Amino acid sequence: MPEKWEDIAALKRNLLLASIPPDWFLPDAIKPPDSQLNVTRFPAESRFFTSRELELTSLGAASLLEKLASGAWSAVEVAEAYCKRAAVAHQLTNCLSETLFDTARSTAAALDEHLRTTGRPKGPLHGLPISLKDNFNIMGVDSTVGFVSWVNQPATYDSTLVQLLRNAGAVFYVKTNVPTAMMIAETVNNVFGRTLNPLNRALTSGGSSGGESALIAFGGSALGVGTDIGGSLRIPAACTGIFTLRPSFGRFPTLGAKSGLAGQEAVQSVNGPMARSLEDLVLFSKTVVEARPWLADPRCLPIPWREVSLGRKLKLAVMWHDGVVMPTPPVRRALRETVEQLQAAGHEVVEWRAEGHERIAEILGRFFVADGGKTVKSILDPVGEPWRPEMAYYKAASEMGVAELWKLQAERTELCKAYLDRWNGVAGLDGILCPTTPYASVAHQDFKYVGYTGVFNVLDYTALSFPSGVTAHRELDRAAAEAHAPLSDVCAEISGSYNEEAVHDMPVNLQLVGRRLEEEKVLQMADIILKDLGMHAPSRT
Amino acid sequence: MPEKWEDIAALKRNLLLASIPPDWFLPDAIKPPDSQLNVTRFPAESRFFTSRELELTSLGAASLLEKLASGAWSAVEVAEAYCKRAAVAHQLTNCLSETLFDTARSTAAALDEHLRTTGRPKGPLHGLPISLKDNFNIMGVDSTVGFVSWVNQPATYDSTLVQLLRNAGAVFYVKTNVPTAMMIAETVNNVFGRTLNPLNRALTSGGSSGGESALIAFGGSALGVGTDIGGSLRIPAACTGIFTLRPSFGRFPTLGAKSGLAGQEAVQSVNGPMARSLEDLVLFSKTVVEARPWLADPRCLPIPWREVSLGRKLKLAVMWHDGVVMPTPPVRRALRETVEQLQAAGHEVVEWRAEGHERIAEILGRFFVADGGKTVKSILDPVGEPWRPEMAYYKAASEMGVAELWKLQAERTELCKAYLDRWNGVAGLDGILCPTTPYASVAHQDFKYVGYTGVFNVLDYTALSFPSGVTAHRELDRAAAEAHAPLSDVCAEISGSYNEEAVHDMPVNLQLVGRRLEEEKVLQMADIILKDLGMHAPSRT
Repeated sequence: MPEKWEDIAALKRNLLLASIPPDWFLPDAIKPPDSQLNVTRFPAESRFFTSRELELTSLGAASLLEKLASGAWSAVEVAEAYCKRAAVAHQLTNCLSETLFDTARSTAAALDEHLRTTGRPKGPLHGLPISLKDNFNIMGVDSTVGFVSWVNQPATYDSTLVQLLRNAGAVFYVKTNVPTAMMIAETVNNVFGRTLNPLNRALTSGGSSGGESALIAFGGSALGVGTDIGGSLRIPAACTGIFTLRPSFGRFPTLGAKSGLAGQEAVQSVNGPMARSLEDLVLFSKTVVEARPWLADPRCLPIPWREVSLGRKLKLAVMWHDGVVMPTPPVRRALRETVEQLQAAGHEVVEWRAEGHERIAEILGRFFVADGGKTVKSILDPVGEPWRPEMAYYKAASEMGVAELWKLQAERTELCKAYLDRWNGVAGLDGILCPTTPYASVAHQDFKYVGYTGVFNVLDYTALSFPSGVTAHRELDRAAAEAHAPLSDVCAEISGSYNEEAVHDMPVNLQLVGRRLEEEKVLQMADIILKDLGMHAPSRT
Repeated sequence: MPEKWEDIAALKRNLLLASIPPDWFLPDAIKPPDSQLNVTRFPAESRFFTSRELELTSLGAASLLEKLASGAWSAVEVAEAYCKRAAVAHQLTNCLSETLFDTARSTAAALDEHLRTTGRPKGPLHGLPISLKDNFNIMGVDSTVGFVSWVNQPATYDSTLVQLLRNAGAVFYVKTNVPTAMMIAETVNNVFGRTLNPLNRALTSGGSSGGESALIAFGGSALGVGTDIGGSLRIPAACTGIFTLRPSFGRFPTLGAKSGLAGQEAVQSVNGPMARSLEDLVLFSKTVVEARPWLADPRCLPIPWREVSLGRKLKLAVMWHDGVVMPTPPVRRALRETVEQLQAAGHEVVEWRAEGHERIAEILGRFFVADGGKTVKSILDPVGEPWRPEMAYYKAASEMGVAELWKLQAERTELCKAYLDRWNGVAGLDGILCPTTPYASVAHQDFKYVGYTGVFNVLDYTALSFPSGVTAHRELDRAAAEAHAPLSDVCAEISGSYNEEAVHDMPVNLQLVGRRLEEEKVLQMADIILKDLGMHAPSRT
């Protein structure tokens, strides 16, 4: 191993590229120039993929599993096609951190053999390629989490979720890029560099699960798994127009995954699925819970999968803004149009005030740096890796004593109680509809605010981010925009960085929030909402 | 208010005594002398109570509720009898911190009126007098938690559990004494002094819910509520031979109760019922969960009451000792005899090694003083209250930085995982049977070890303490005792303080431990065990 951090990082990047078979490298002749912003149509239009490869990578996870379980498609051919498509995604968006192509082939071959000899799929995820955020440990593979000092430190065990998914028949074939310590809302680090948004490479794919979102939006994965401590599932889903579910802590197993802030528990990191359809979120969630993860992860809750049948109109509260940052015009229009459609479909919509949001978001920020950034620094230092500029807040932080942490935790519980009471105060309230972020997406280095997601981490409420069907539009958004005074300094900064040209045509996600531990209900509400928005068919690429 | 802490405390004690009606003061002629150790027969033998008063206070909570719901007994007469019996308990054991006799009378009268006019009980606890550990807030009443500076600081709200029980029809009539900050395994503080064990006043009633255990063991309460962060329900139950359930965190609401370590969450305090019968624990637990406390306390889990029907022989693991402290001879004999009876009844019993216990108990101790005792000091200081000698560990502690806390929390999770895996490794294991404490009970100031209970707080496992039916016996215990080398310094200290004469005739409790969030199953297992031990009838006083 080289000794300088830059060299270690460069070697790691080169090894990653070298793990891609030469046949899958894009020749210069067909490789889109850097100036081409949208690369999502490349697979279909470039002829780099066979029509069979395109077909094999066209379905959502649920539909793909039907093909696999019946034996209509072999696990090996599906894995091969997804490996190739992910390899291309990486060349165009820098979305991967690890490839596991050989392992994927042998896993898939064993699954095919299992189906052939037993006549049965191995489990509910038989043969499904699943992409994993970099911090999930797979034995023998690095989980650098963007840290140079963690390069060439292969995991000695599998994360609990990895074991669970593997037992269910999943095929792991790539891990995806994250920002340093997974504590930046974009995806950039000193090992692998920056991940680009395949819908518009001048924009961020969000973070911290932004390698996943880029890969999925490109069609390089039917189902991925990310994590979320302040918005890290929902922000990248929103930046790329895909679906995700942030469950409450304890539904899905988190044990044995790598963290940049190990042992931090004042707000709990969770993981969840990212996909191009709602039904794939349901598939993942039900499969994980029905595997009884509480028998493997001591912090999981023994709550079985609970079928919900709402079968009625919803009562939703709409939060137009959080009192700190006004969403940019595309998001405001998307929320307004969505509310109008839902009202027209007969749902009741009331207004929701953002009481407590500012203080809750502040406390979240304090929790993240309660150790004065020491934990992150201890991972940077062994190789002299410098702080990323995006982490200036961590670099500048002072360590808190435990007495102060206890005070903040007590205050947090009071804020949670006030929020719960306020929810109870709206008779029959099913959920809150609000922005996921102030942005459709935004230029690299400009993502400045995670308050819309982070508040629900502190509250530990179930929160789903879904594409509203509205896309940013330079004229429509300008026409519909209303002047407003900045709500705060960061609000002014975000208004200032808004560029109607840059985000034109980007999808706008919204956030649907349920009470704590209401995963089944939130998924069902989203199903009702999508139907009434006329958006129900699972998207194809 | 006086200014010196001693005077504030003396005034508070005098006010407490003055709240007892003169008619309920024991005349010197019949008051047992201090030299009389066992005062539990005083109510029946002294003629200070009418036979009606004895009858009204004779039943367990479940049986008592039948009388109340049918109107056979009025809530007022039951409340009056319990107020008197509690007042006497206080004079003999110093077990109370607050009386609410007038409130109890008016609450009970309103309940009688409700039953008379509607023909229905108000709720599942209609008219039941429930005693509360001092830290439960009742509006207008102090919750000093043994701190002088908290004297004359009446609560401005009710604890969530208080609201829930009140809605169910409970009558609050007393709050019970605790040690300073509830962080001592006996019950002593600078405000109210020391609570004595009514079975033997030279011995401790345990702590921190030792006012409750003394009151219940005296027959002054049919059902009480205590709390437990390291054994504070189970230790006092064991010292007095009553029943208690330490639920996992999230089953019963903890919000709005006072803590000596507010905001400390690395190990969670819980509350639970204390009673003279198992059926009363079931009654309380089911009532609380069926009130859906998760709609009122944001940290409660939406897990409904789950009926369990084991209907078979159990597979139990017996842990003879924890590798740190050998239980005293009565406890060893009780555990051995119990195991023999259970095996004879057809249950399978395997051995359980105490792996991890020593380190888990150490970490628990570190969590308690992670703030360097600052939180407690900040409550002592305003009135110059000195540290209790029992809290020397808190006084001497240094504050930890949050980075170190994170490390300890990460280690704790690993230890929890190892324990879970070990449990999974014993196919079909239902529960662990082990000591609750090393003692039957022990002389005041001699309670030295909480490892048998505290480990299960860190693991957050459901744990029930129940009287085994075995009582300490000077000859039998000596005959059965086997010589053993001390396992540790504290083991030697505990062996040295063991006094077969002093504990002769004291009941010995054992501890039954289930997995996390298995309250229903643990209660059902205890029911099976008690039947097979021939101990099923609810005890009467």
